[in-house]
Amino acid sequence: MIIVMKSDATKVDIEKVISTVKELGYKAHIIEGVLRTVIGAVGDERGKPHHLEAIGILSGVEKVVPILQPYKLASREFKSENTVVKVGNVEIGDNKVVIIAGPCSVENEEQIIETSKAVKEAGATVLRGGAYKPRTSPYSFQGLGEEGLRLLAQARKITGLPIVTEILDPHDLDVIAEYSDMLQIGARNAQNYALLRYVGRSNKPVLLKRGMSTTINEFLMAAEYILSEGNHNVVLCERGIRTFETATRNTFDLNAIPVLKEKTHLPVIADPSHGTGYWQYVTPMALAAIAAGADGLMIEVHYKPEIAQSDGGQSLKPSKFTALMERAKLVAKAVGREI
Amino acid sequence: MIIVMKSDATKVDIEKVISTVKELGYKAHIIEGVLRTVIGAVGDERGKPHHLEAIGILSGVEKVVPILQPYKLASREFKSENTVVKVGNVEIGDNKVVIIAGPCSVENEEQIIETSKAVKEAGATVLRGGAYKPRTSPYSFQGLGEEGLRLLAQARKITGLPIVTEILDPHDLDVIAEYSDMLQIGARNAQNYALLRYVGRSNKPVLLKRGMSTTINEFLMAAEYILSEGNHNVVLCERGIRTFETATRNTFDLNAIPVLKEKTHLPVIADPSHGTGYWQYVTPMALAAIAAGADGLMIEVHYKPEIAQSDGGQSLKPSKFTALMERAKLVAKAVGREI
Amino acid sequence: MIIVMKSDATKVDIEKVISTVKELGYKAHIIEGVLRTVIGAVGDERGKPHHLEAIGILSGVEKVVPILQPYKLASREFKSENTVVKVGNVEIGDNKVVIIAGPCSVENEEQIIETSKAVKEAGATVLRGGAYKPRTSPYSFQGLGEEGLRLLAQARKITGLPIVTEILDPHDLDVIAEYSDMLQIGARNAQNYALLRYVGRSNKPVLLKRGMSTTINEFLMAAEYILSEGNHNVVLCERGIRTFETATRNTFDLNAIPVLKEKTHLPVIADPSHGTGYWQYVTPMALAAIAAGADGLMIEVHYKPEIAQSDGGQSLKPSKFTALMERAKLVAKAVGREI
Amino acid sequence: MIIVMKSDATKVDIEKVISTVKELGYKAHIIEGVLRTVIGAVGDERGKPHHLEAIGILSGVEKVVPILQPYKLASREFKSENTVVKVGNVEIGDNKVVIIAGPCSVENEEQIIETSKAVKEAGATVLRGGAYKPRTSPYSFQGLGEEGLRLLAQARKITGLPIVTEILDPHDLDVIAEYSDMLQIGARNAQNYALLRYVGRSNKPVLLKRGMSTTINEFLMAAEYILSEGNHNVVLCERGIRTFETATRNTFDLNAIPVLKEKTHLPVIADPSHGTGYWQYVTPMALAAIAAGADGLMIEVHYKPEIAQSDGGQSLKPSKFTALMERAKLVAKAVGREI
Repeated sequence: MIIVMKSDATKVDIEKVISTVKELGYKAHIIEGVLRTVIGAVGDERGKPHHLEAIGILSGVEKVVPILQPYKLASREFKSENTVVKVGNVEIGDNKVVIIAGPCSVENEEQIIETSKAVKEAGATVLRGGAYKPRTSPYSFQGLGEEGLRLLAQARKITGLPIVTEILDPHDLDVIAEYSDMLQIGARNAQNYALLRYVGRSNKPVLLKRGMSTTINEFLMAAEYILSEGNHNVVLCERGIRTFETATRNTFDLNAIPVLKEKTHLPVIADPSHGTGYWQYVTPMALAAIAAGADGLMIEVHYKPEIAQSDGGQSLKPSKFTALMERAKLVAKAVGREI
Repeated sequence: MIIVMKSDATKVDIEKVISTVKELGYKAHIIEGVLRTVIGAVGDERGKPHHLEAIGILSGVEKVVPILQPYKLASREFKSENTVVKVGNVEIGDNKVVIIAGPCSVENEEQIIETSKAVKEAGATVLRGGAYKPRTSPYSFQGLGEEGLRLLAQARKITGLPIVTEILDPHDLDVIAEYSDMLQIGARNAQNYALLRYVGRSNKPVLLKRGMSTTINEFLMAAEYILSEGNHNVVLCERGIRTFETATRNTFDLNAIPVLKEKTHLPVIADPSHGTGYWQYVTPMALAAIAAGADGLMIEVHYKPEIAQSDGGQSLKPSKFTALMERAKLVAKAVGREI
Repeated sequence: MIIVMKSDATKVDIEKVISTVKELGYKAHIIEGVLRTVIGAVGDERGKPHHLEAIGILSGVEKVVPILQPYKLASREFKSENTVVKVGNVEIGDNKVVIIAGPCSVENEEQIIETSKAVKEAGATVLRGGAYKPRTSPYSFQGLGEEGLRLLAQARKITGLPIVTEILDPHDLDVIAEYSDMLQIGARNAQNYALLRYVGRSNKPVLLKRGMSTTINEFLMAAEYILSEGNHNVVLCERGIRTFETATRNTFDLNAIPVLKEKTHLPVIADPSHGTGYWQYVTPMALAAIAAGADGLMIEVHYKPEIAQSDGGQSLKPSKFTALMERAKLVAKAVGREI
Repeated sequence: MIIVMKSDATKVDIEKVISTVKELGYKAHIIEGVLRTVIGAVGDERGKPHHLEAIGILSGVEKVVPILQPYKLASREFKSENTVVKVGNVEIGDNKVVIIAGPCSVENEEQIIETSKAVKEAGATVLRGGAYKPRTSPYSFQGLGEEGLRLLAQARKITGLPIVTEILDPHDLDVIAEYSDMLQIGARNAQNYALLRYVGRSNKPVLLKRGMSTTINEFLMAAEYILSEGNHNVVLCERGIRTFETATRNTFDLNAIPVLKEKTHLPVIADPSHGTGYWQYVTPMALAAIAAGADGLMIEVHYKPEIAQSDGGQSLKPSKFTALMERAKLVAKAVGREI
């Protein structure tokens, strides 16, 4: 932590900061600059009861600048080699780019079975589908609940694809864990720390989506909540952030992919369906995600998007998804990977 | 819902849109413009299984524009007179500007008792204090839990101030409801719909904070989740949104106050402590919030901010809080209200 | 400048950074932390040919953190007492809250004369009106040009109000300076450094609006461009920033007022018309701006807003402006100022 | 334009809106919905003196929703086939992905000659380099001015590469046009309409960068300013937008590429150097840009980035640029293009 003093800070101000730094358990290191004094507080904040931000309230302090990134277990410093997460028989995080596909919501038997057969045939290796849906409106379709889980399990039986599905409520953890192969934490719950702790205590791999206004640092801290509870099977998913631009539903932040690959050993995948929000942008941005280094893609596919009960506008028809897969294989190869 | 066709949309495209609109249960109304055709879909989407956004995937459609705001119970159209929410013996939403104050977290007996006595003396009428804390880092102080609730209840006994405290985990609902007078949903859970439903089913008033990237519309939809479960005692709280500006911790969006007062009958309060993140900006922005029409303020006060275990940098000392109260009374009077 | 090394930086990496810091003309100060080394580079960057950010490219460097704010003449450190800017016979920056009002664009004689008489009567002391308009579309009304300036001068003659009007093109500087009392730099030109230099070399006071995505620091740097050319009569104007929220045209960032008043000696005013974009939010946000400490307001008033050629939706009718003025006087008094 | 009435709008309110729509030269089309009335105003706003937004001020109006995109010449509707822009002997916008490379600023003869020889050898076909620099601080290096232009011309003579360089001040137009092959409008001047008009009247091709907070619509309107003056040789460049994320210097918005390619016939290139701001993210994001459909890349290369006078931290060394080119060729081929 670096504490920058105001240019008119008095000697007494500086002394008070130094003594407070020491009281809180850190060493103080003073740099006298041309215009102002800077105090370096040496020591690892993580685990200490008191943080140093509060020092900003002392007289004469201009600002307090953190130096250390606050995550540990998620960092490359802690573990330099890539983590590979196993979902059913599929490995996420190795040289193969994993394709997760399926409808936004499970709506009925025909829909999920037909769609899952189509994505399997096109080359997807994991099936997605929501049984519990976080909808902006309480009056929108909220998912089929346990019936949806049963239909997903039926689709897995037919296609052999492992299942990832979202959890909203800790009370549903047991039933979802029973039916599914991977738990998804959605963007709206990216900083729902209670839920993160619960899935951290489960033995299921977790697909953690970035929140709409979650910084990369906060995203890694959310992962740290899960890791710190003992569950090391976390896959990060970029799915778009909220900005001023409305031409796309979100601003799909592909930069997050190389940034995350640099900072963490966890696998990083990308969801261009939510990231862009319009089916016609899904394919180019899926290819871009692979070129940027993503370990996988998550794509919404629906056998009849125009009657989908959620996210129809951003879902691909099976034929378009098949075309995407063909192009994705070429791009993966061009960057030294395979699908 | 307005469906805008592309300028090169064919007759067949337009017919397909019209027939789909009808199939989904709406009436279609066609406007032929100079350059393109626009189709109005008449009917209330709320409660219908299928939304019209998915029509965007049909050939020839340029965009789909929603017309109706999606909330009902929260709207002024549904209820034009202001709602007044009772918390203990305090009423929020009438002519009196309510002041909620207290520390970010309950840390120990001396801290909460001394701080609550100080805010009571300065004129606050509700006590805030966190027992369960949503911290960005799993390694930061997470609150005292039930022990914190007990200390809050002790402070209430001494000062007579009703208590508002945050809930993170639905499993804690009963114990928090037992000790507190009002449940707070924090910014990170503003779109945690499972939690919103649980507090909607409780009989406690709810303080709902705006999320960091929650639009006004989504904020009202979050309130709608609570209202639609039968709990009509919801107070909205603006606490800053996330933007590019880093001179303040968040961008405290005071515009939300007149916008919300126009659109909803629910009381609207403001939290300049989180909104700005620096103690020196809290007083001017608290005054501004009252001038903008806020029904109340929520202010972080700590008897010794420099050793606070959370949010010390944005907490006021009791003496500064007392000075704020004096100035707030004058501004309230200037806009025809009282404190 | 603080240079944070990676935890696995080698001794050679650290030596290379230190020698580069010295070569570029700074002193190096080393802090060895628990997990990583931090190097403080002591020296004032301003005026040095080489900046230290480029050091980020050296092997082993994690990040480079600037310490010094980059503006000089605009800072409170340079000049602690408030600057008062004189526009005609009006002083901006002293205890009186100055009200600038008038139409978005000058449209014709009747419009500008009627509107200026109305704002004068309600208590405004400076007249605004655009003769050269920065419109998003080249097909929109672009202003009357010199004819508009002549009409403004006529309105000044009748009402006695000094005039502020926007400059877009350096080629127009002489003609605009001839007719007007104050030059306005609009939000879209907030970082048009060529134009800032030109107005910096003129002897007219400058009203500098914050850009839509300009941070407080960049805003002060834009002012610094003008100041560094020798023109010290700069008034800053907050007018809303661009965020994800669309319920208002911009997000009027009132926090900027106390932040700027802390960091700079220049007067700070607020424009709730552009800040909110809807006439019904102008009055509450104008009152809030005064409560937050603004030295003045800039309000769009039009004698017939519904036929305005620009910004009609955010303009007040004279009767509403008069009501605003009455309320503004009360709030100003409540915070120890007058109008 | 769609005008949405409030649910409690009176018959008189609705009549007044309809008559105003007609007065302003549009046809009114009424849709009576279940809860509210919607009025479609039919007619092309472009070229009409009065816009319909101002109708929002009339009693009973809830909101005014524009239907038509406001650009004409830039749209695919106006011209469906791709525009190809010629810069020297290089064509931008056909199947070949064009690589523009060079230093941020021209610093001295050795630097620009060595760097331009290196980028030429690696396969770049256009040389970039700033002679007039828009720097946040007036105390930073502002470019060599005309001397910089002369050095660029010298580099062109040696390498044969055409030159693109930025214009800040309309007064410099003639001298810059004399030396260079393409004029660049930088992000800070993306809505400097005066400057856009000047370059629109020149006969040089223009590289128009997206502003930090420019929406796609506004970006196309900025291009429209140039096109409407008669200069049809405009290349659009995505270079990152401003968001809350600070892990990258800007949020490089690759989504803009497929969105722009859909909406306009103009070529679209991408600048991952400014987009990300850190050299280590430039290569993955350059590859991603090609996969997303970019017609070209603009890359900052410096023969000694650690002593660059601007943007050193985001510049590639020639060896890294050569490696990028090798990888870029493979990705271009995978998406059916070449370099």
